[in-house]
Amino acid sequence: MSGKAEIAAVDWGTTRLRVWLLDAAGTVLDERRSDDGMLTAQQKGFAAILERHLGDMGAERDLPVIVCGMAGARQGWVEAPYVDVPSLLDDILGAAVPVPGVGRNIRIVPGLAQRNPRTPDVMRGEETQLAGISHLVGSGSHLVCMPGTHSKWVIAEGGTISGFGTWATGEMFSVLAQHSILRHSIGDRPAAVAPTGQVFRDWCQEALFDADIGARLFGIRAASLLSGLGQEDAAAALSGLLIGAEIASATRRFGRRGAPVILVGSGPLGALYAEAMHLDGIAVEIADADAAVLAGLVAAARRNGMLPEGDAQ
Amino acid sequence: MSGKAEIAAVDWGTTRLRVWLLDAAGTVLDERRSDDGMLTAQQKGFAAILERHLGDMGAERDLPVIVCGMAGARQGWVEAPYVDVPSLLDDILGAAVPVPGVGRNIRIVPGLAQRNPRTPDVMRGEETQLAGISHLVGSGSHLVCMPGTHSKWVIAEGGTISGFGTWATGEMFSVLAQHSILRHSIGDRPAAVAPTGQVFRDWCQEALFDADIGARLFGIRAASLLSGLGQEDAAAALSGLLIGAEIASATRRFGRRGAPVILVGSGPLGALYAEAMHLDGIAVEIADADAAVLAGLVAAARRNGMLPEGDAQ
Repeated sequence: MSGKAEIAAVDWGTTRLRVWLLDAAGTVLDERRSDDGMLTAQQKGFAAILERHLGDMGAERDLPVIVCGMAGARQGWVEAPYVDVPSLLDDILGAAVPVPGVGRNIRIVPGLAQRNPRTPDVMRGEETQLAGISHLVGSGSHLVCMPGTHSKWVIAEGGTISGFGTWATGEMFSVLAQHSILRHSIGDRPAAVAPTGQVFRDWCQEALFDADIGARLFGIRAASLLSGLGQEDAAAALSGLLIGAEIASATRRFGRRGAPVILVGSGPLGALYAEAMHLDGIAVEIADADAAVLAGLVAAARRNGMLPEGDAQ
Repeated sequence: MSGKAEIAAVDWGTTRLRVWLLDAAGTVLDERRSDDGMLTAQQKGFAAILERHLGDMGAERDLPVIVCGMAGARQGWVEAPYVDVPSLLDDILGAAVPVPGVGRNIRIVPGLAQRNPRTPDVMRGEETQLAGISHLVGSGSHLVCMPGTHSKWVIAEGGTISGFGTWATGEMFSVLAQHSILRHSIGDRPAAVAPTGQVFRDWCQEALFDADIGARLFGIRAASLLSGLGQEDAAAALSGLLIGAEIASATRRFGRRGAPVILVGSGPLGALYAEAMHLDGIAVEIADADAAVLAGLVAAARRNGMLPEGDAQ
């Protein structure tokens, strides 16, 4: 059967859309990435955008489609109501919601809600990544870190997602770098931050101690004025401060567990988190984020009878 | 001599300008407030703006002028180089820098720098407020809180400013409310926050516990989605979170001292800080911020021979 598309897998985020065509074994036959995220789709229509991409890729008119991400939000395509934690990964995938009236079998994986009044939280998309690393989190007790605009930290116990938290680290970086007084220190286009830089490490180390962002933010501006901290180093300081504070805060909330933290990340951001955890003496096991979402979509397709059970990737 | 202007006092901030005419006793004869802050003056000229306001107020052509604030920054009118802490309040005022070539006796009070590599910091303007509450901080050991866009916490010991820190609480509030995902929860115009509101108190209380902003920021968004937290309450939650975290962080750094914290604030913001400190069991002595800067400018004028020594307000 290899070579024939059996399903389309879609990761539909706020600003990005990714579409893969897969064979029955979950092997990628074709892939497209575009900026047609939820914000664009709200204007142009979700069905129209999806059909255009599928058509461009030569997908058959009855190819089923499994979707995760913001397409399932209330302001998205069809609401896939949050599944409350604690919940088994398998049950989360089984709660995928069909999209009616589109002439195709399309299902959207739901997000997760944590309705604890002291730590209310939500996720959409990361639950699919978690399902995609079930070989790592399907048994035993694990702490998972998924860095990004809104980083998620997740407790998985015996295949159950028992709790999670969000640290808006990526968003704080961009908002503070662009709109606060730090823009005078960092400049119009923040420099790429290297995990090997001493300034990143120094600011990270300080924040790892007490997770205190507020006490140190203005210090970046002061260091520019008093000791000539350059733009590249100012960006590294802000990145180190925020990532160090996130790790300190999350490990304080969830404890360090026995096993290594599973870091679902790749590229430059994953490298910064890996270095920060190394500075803090945290053992890390790295999982690729793109591979995780794809494997999770395949698992969701199988769970919903859209692909034959069996062949694990 | 009462009734005759002997000096003009000017608080020249980044976005605001305030000018007072004072008699020899420091009594206010006239006052103007305008938006001609440093950012405007960089375009139109500091001398031109000041002369226009003084002319409109009927000030004589040889009236001396004492200035504090951003006019003394490098990017301001004439740089009044930072005085390093620790430093005596009296010595800070004595380091006021003359503005050359303007046909008047004009002096600018310098700001303060803390050149500790772990806690670099700067202030401009607040040093004058501190001089204006010398009856409170001139002897003994005190912790002073000056809330604002960039809140300052100051240690004063026997009339010496021995150290300080900045928490960019006001700026974080406006930047996150306007530019982060929280704008969807807070709305285009953040509601005024009342210190008596339960949501303000709840979020403040949580943050007072551990100063952890990052762990809770996204929770405001999640509470909007999961439990219908309204726009007014979302603004109150963000305010409570940031102010509570500031107080926890600053008192952790400086300790609580024996005496009450001196809170230099007035109006709605001062009331929020007073309530937050009350929640934390911190005794507070309140000083009016406007009165403080004015008294500090009078003290600076006397210290620089621009007014006769003697008559304290």
